[in-house]
Amino acid sequence: MENRYTDKLKETLNSYHELSDSSLEILLQNCEISSHTAETYISRENKPDSSEYFLLEGILHSCHYSESGENITTGFYLPGTVITPHFARTIGGNSIYGLQFLTAGVAGSIPVTILDELRNRIEDIRIFGKKVVEEELTRSVRQNLSFRADSAKERLINLRSEYPNLENMVPHTAIASFLGITPVSFSRLRNTLAKKQHNFLSNDKRNPPLK
Amino acid sequence: MENRYTDKLKETLNSYHELSDSSLEILLQNCEISSHTAETYISRENKPDSSEYFLLEGILHSCHYSESGENITTGFYLPGTVITPHFARTIGGNSIYGLQFLTAGVAGSIPVTILDELRNRIEDIRIFGKKVVEEELTRSVRQNLSFRADSAKERLINLRSEYPNLENMVPHTAIASFLGITPVSFSRLRNTLAKKQHNFLSNDKRNPPLK
Repeated sequence: MENRYTDKLKETLNSYHELSDSSLEILLQNCEISSHTAETYISRENKPDSSEYFLLEGILHSCHYSESGENITTGFYLPGTVITPHFARTIGGNSIYGLQFLTAGVAGSIPVTILDELRNRIEDIRIFGKKVVEEELTRSVRQNLSFRADSAKERLINLRSEYPNLENMVPHTAIASFLGITPVSFSRLRNTLAKKQHNFLSNDKRNPPLK
Repeated sequence: MENRYTDKLKETLNSYHELSDSSLEILLQNCEISSHTAETYISRENKPDSSEYFLLEGILHSCHYSESGENITTGFYLPGTVITPHFARTIGGNSIYGLQFLTAGVAGSIPVTILDELRNRIEDIRIFGKKVVEEELTRSVRQNLSFRADSAKERLINLRSEYPNLENMVPHTAIASFLGITPVSFSRLRNTLAKKQHNFLSNDKRNPPLK
């Protein structure tokens, strides 16, 4: 395993819970690192999947093909995060959605059976797993609420706060799809928010325009 | 505490993980049981909440007031279930949505600080907590996917499978809101599905119509 990815993987794991050197070592020994080009799937809808994943570089989305053949984005993952745990995104061992790179990237994977065994046996890996599940539930509940209850404008503001700079990194069709609006509406919404931001800055007395 | 609710509470807790008699006893000692009429809130959006809840009788929904003052249903809870854990439905100790009874009902509550202390100290209560969080994440991920990716018809079919008979128990406005459609579209969708069911039964050769 290349050193730069070893360090990135350790950093990712430690960001959920500070792990001992021996726990990090055993996790790394069981991890496989792989590089992917944009549009590559690491898991496919309705196909067997038996791994947990760590995103080290690039951006992934979870996605689903609608009846009309449209690829709908249901979530985003940024580098340095653990992908939604296996038990929550599979039924009978098959993935309920696809996991696809939106940019070139690097992922770590570990067989779910091995990680489960380590979580049962080693205390700090158990706590790491608990933290991952709790963070994921918090994220899922908030995103679900925002998608159901907020206006498109509020949803975009939430997205920008949760995934800063995403609009400069992934196709806008994926973001529009995640927000549940058309690409044309998304483009209009961006313009509206940009104008508001411009007016806000122009009217801000603390920062008068240069003469 | 009335005996019938003690039994119902034990049954609810045991349905997530079989608990020892002493663990059940200590949980019951720290639980408060209260009866509520329909439309009562046990938790209000943006207000402090410091409890975990167990739904023993009746049906609850999580809900949010939209900008236009509409009460949007974001989830349902059936009797015998633990409500979404406190950490996932609060920010800074304030609830991110309301929890309101749609029917008359009974809930148990326990201070989150006490349950957290018990989870840290007692092994089977720790596993109970883990199971609750895992079930809730699975439910949240699947509902999020269905709401984003499925047609209204598929969403209604999923709802009927997850909450059987719900349409006979709660206001249809709440169900339409949860499905993200108008009450009129909901009524039409029910009629379409009822007709299909009728045609399916009439055409089913295994069950020929009586002569």
